[in-house]
Amino acid sequence: MKHVSNRMLNYLEPQMYARFTMLANQKGCVNLGQGFPNFAPPQFLREALSEEALTEQLQYTMTAGHPKLLNSAASFFQKRMGLQINIDKEIVVSSGAQSVLCCLMQGILNPNDEVIVFDPAFDLYRPLIEFSGGKHIGIPIKPKVLNNKEMMLKRYQNGQFIYTNDDEWEIDFTHLEQNEEYNKLAEILEKYPKIIVCEDAAYHHITFQNNEPFKYPRCITHPKLKEKSVCVMSAGKMFSATGLRVGFAIGNEDIIKGMKAAQTYHIFCLNPVNQTATARCLDYTADGLYFYSLRNLYQQQATKLLKGLIESRLNFNYWVPQGGYFVVTDISNIDIPNKYFIQNDVKVTRDFAFAHYMINEFGVVCIPCSPYYENKETGQNLVRWAFCKTDETISEAINRLQ
Amino acid sequence: MKHVSNRMLNYLEPQMYARFTMLANQKGCVNLGQGFPNFAPPQFLREALSEEALTEQLQYTMTAGHPKLLNSAASFFQKRMGLQINIDKEIVVSSGAQSVLCCLMQGILNPNDEVIVFDPAFDLYRPLIEFSGGKHIGIPIKPKVLNNKEMMLKRYQNGQFIYTNDDEWEIDFTHLEQNEEYNKLAEILEKYPKIIVCEDAAYHHITFQNNEPFKYPRCITHPKLKEKSVCVMSAGKMFSATGLRVGFAIGNEDIIKGMKAAQTYHIFCLNPVNQTATARCLDYTADGLYFYSLRNLYQQQATKLLKGLIESRLNFNYWVPQGGYFVVTDISNIDIPNKYFIQNDVKVTRDFAFAHYMINEFGVVCIPCSPYYENKETGQNLVRWAFCKTDETISEAINRLQ
Ligand SMILES: Cc1ncc(COP(=O)(O)O)c(C=O)c1O
Ligand SMILES: Cc1ncc(COP(=O)(O)O)c(C=O)c1O
Repeated sequence: MKHVSNRMLNYLEPQMYARFTMLANQKGCVNLGQGFPNFAPPQFLREALSEEALTEQLQYTMTAGHPKLLNSAASFFQKRMGLQINIDKEIVVSSGAQSVLCCLMQGILNPNDEVIVFDPAFDLYRPLIEFSGGKHIGIPIKPKVLNNKEMMLKRYQNGQFIYTNDDEWEIDFTHLEQNEEYNKLAEILEKYPKIIVCEDAAYHHITFQNNEPFKYPRCITHPKLKEKSVCVMSAGKMFSATGLRVGFAIGNEDIIKGMKAAQTYHIFCLNPVNQTATARCLDYTADGLYFYSLRNLYQQQATKLLKGLIESRLNFNYWVPQGGYFVVTDISNIDIPNKYFIQNDVKVTRDFAFAHYMINEFGVVCIPCSPYYENKETGQNLVRWAFCKTDETISEAINRLQ
Repeated sequence: MKHVSNRMLNYLEPQMYARFTMLANQKGCVNLGQGFPNFAPPQFLREALSEEALTEQLQYTMTAGHPKLLNSAASFFQKRMGLQINIDKEIVVSSGAQSVLCCLMQGILNPNDEVIVFDPAFDLYRPLIEFSGGKHIGIPIKPKVLNNKEMMLKRYQNGQFIYTNDDEWEIDFTHLEQNEEYNKLAEILEKYPKIIVCEDAAYHHITFQNNEPFKYPRCITHPKLKEKSVCVMSAGKMFSATGLRVGFAIGNEDIIKGMKAAQTYHIFCLNPVNQTATARCLDYTADGLYFYSLRNLYQQQATKLLKGLIESRLNFNYWVPQGGYFVVTDISNIDIPNKYFIQNDVKVTRDFAFAHYMINEFGVVCIPCSPYYENKETGQNLVRWAFCKTDETISEAINRLQ
C-alpha cells in the first residue's frame, strides 16, 4: 500500500454493506442487509428523468444546486414541514445524503473539533469526521424496555403492533417524551453556545404510529434549535431510488456557506438532469399523498417482518420500529455455534458471528450493529433487518427463519 | 463565519468561473469564459440517458463504478489507447474529473506531502491538495516563442494555422520534443522512486495537428512511467456534456485502491443511469469516428477564434493551441485603462483588470490566468478564451473585438 494515504489505511477493505451483499449473491441468500428498496422506484421518477434527459441542458450548473431544484425543494419543505428557506443561503444540494455529510464535515470541522454522535449511528460518519480532522465521540442511546416474544405477541392486535413511546431509544436523560427530548437538548445547548446540531433525517418521511410523513419534530423545526441546526435529507430515500444521488442540507446560513465551499471542490456541481427530475418529483408529491401511501407500505412491511421474526425459531428481544427502513433485534438469548466466531482467522463480535450463522444456516442476510457503536461491546447484541423489500422477499426470509 | 472550518475560509467566495458567468449574464456579454460547450450534446447521449432512466435499476451501485461502465471503459481505452486495464484494480469512476481529483488527493496525500504542479494549472487543484494536508508547489512552464500579429498572419495558410512544436510550452528542461519530454521525466523520476505522476487528461480526446484523438502520448502509455502513474479523464468533456458528471481514473493499482476508499465515504456511489448511459456512448464511439469529427470541429473553432483575435483591435501575443477548449493570449502589449485595476476597492492583477475591461468596453468575457499560477505575477499577462462554443457565439465575440 505504498501510495495510499494514512487516513485511508483503515478503510481499504470493501465496506460491510458491499461485503454482505456479495455474500448474499454468492450464497443465494435473501438479502435484508443493505438498505435499498428492491422494488421499482415510482414511474413518475423514471419518466421525469427520461424526459429531462432529452431537453435539459447538460452542462455545468450552479454548485449549490440547480435553481429549479432549489425552488421546488424550498416550496416542498415549506408545504410539508412549514420551513421558510432562503434558497440563496439556507440550502445546498449534493450527490446523495452521503456527499451532503462529506461537505458538512469538511465545511465545519477544524482539527480536534469534537463531534458527539449518538450510537447506534450510521457507520459512515466516523471516517468523514476523521478525514476532516475531527474527533468522533460516540454516546450510546438506550432502549427503555427489552421486549421478549410473549410481550410482543400481546401487542399484536388487529393486524398491527400497538405503538408505544417505550420503543423509542433515549438520549442520556431518561424517560422524556419525544418533544421534550428536543426541549431538553435546546436547554443544554444554551449552556454551550458553540455547539451546533447536525441532524441526519434521511428517513424523515417514513414515520409510523400517528405521525404524518415529514411532521415528526426535528431540530430545524424547533424554535430554539433551528438557528444552530442543519438537517440532512435524501431524495433517493424519499423516492425509493437510492441510486438517484440527490440529497439536501437545510439550515444555518453559516454552515451552508462552508458546505458550498466544500462542494465546489469535492464535486463541482451535480448532474442537472437528476436535479430537474427531482424537482419535478417534489412538485408532483408536494400534496403529501404519495408519502402517505409510501409510509403505509413501509409500515405494513415492518409489521410483516417483525411478526415473522417474533414467530421464528429464533428467540430475539424486539422493538417496534417507529419508522425508517429497518427492524432491529437483540440477539443476547441466542446460541450461536462457536465456529462462527472466527471469520478469516480473526475473532469477531457476536453480531458478526450471528450474521454469518444466518447466512450459512438460514440463507438470510442481516447487518451486524456493532459498527454503529464506538464501543463495539455495546452493539454486539444487535442486528438489523431491512424491510424496504418486496412482499416476496420478506415472506421468503420469514419462511427460512421458521 | 463562526461555524466554517478554517480550511474553507479562503474559499467562501463564489469561484472565478461562477463570478464571470454571472457578470456575462448581467451585462449581456458574449461568454468565452467557463469551459462548457454551449451547443447541444450528441443526441446519442441524450437518448442513452433517456432510455436507461426507464429501465436501469435505480439503486446503489458498486463504489468503484457500475460493472457495465467499467467494462465499456476498459474496452474503449484498450481500442483507442492500447491500454490493458484490470477492471477490478486499475480503474475507478467518479462524479466528474473533479471528484476523481478529490478522491485522488484524499486517497494518496499525507500531511506535508509535496505536490509539484506545472503552472499554468487548473485552479481547483490547490484547494484539493490543501484540504488533504499536502503542499502545493507550482513550477511554471514557459512558451518557447511569443508570437505577435505579423508572425501569426504569416502562419495562416489555406484556412488554417501552420502547427509547430514551438507552440508547446515546456517543462523545466528546454527544447525537447513531445515524446522526449516524457522520456526525460521518466529518467528524472528513476532517481526519485517515491514520486508518482498524476496526469489530468481531461482534454486528451481533443488534440490538433496530426495527432489522432486519444493517441497523444501520456504517462500511462509510456513504458517506464505507466507503473507509477494515474491518468484522469472526463466523460463530460468527451461527450460535450459537462453536466454528465462522470470521470475516470486509470492507473497504478495502489493509487486506485486509495481512491476507492476515499470515494466510498465522499460519494458512496454514482447514479447508475448516468453510468450505463456513458457505457453505451463509449461502446457507440469506440471506433473513434465521433472523436475525429469532434476534434475537427474544435480545431475549426480554435482557428476561427484565433484568427479573429489576431485581426482584432487588440494587440496580443499568441500561440496556436494544440488541443483542448481554449486559446491563451498574452496581454503584455495592451494598455488597460487605470480604473480597471481596482475592483470592489481592491487592487487586482493585470489579467483581472483586462477581463473587466473586456466585459465593460467590449462585452466579451474571458478568464484571467493568474489563478493558474502559484506566482500570480507570472500569470498576470495571460488570459484564456473558450472556443467550445457555437459559430454564432464565436462570430459575435470576434465582431465585438474588431
Ligand atoms: C442514516 C443515513 N444517512 C445517510 C445515508 C446516505 O443516503 P444517500 O443514499 O442519500 O447518500 C444513509 C443511507 O443508508 C443512511 O442510512
Ligand atoms: C484540466 C481540467 N481538469 C478537470 C476538469 C473537471 O472536469 P469534470 O467536468 O469532468 O469534473 C476540468 C474542467 O474544466 C479541467 O479543465
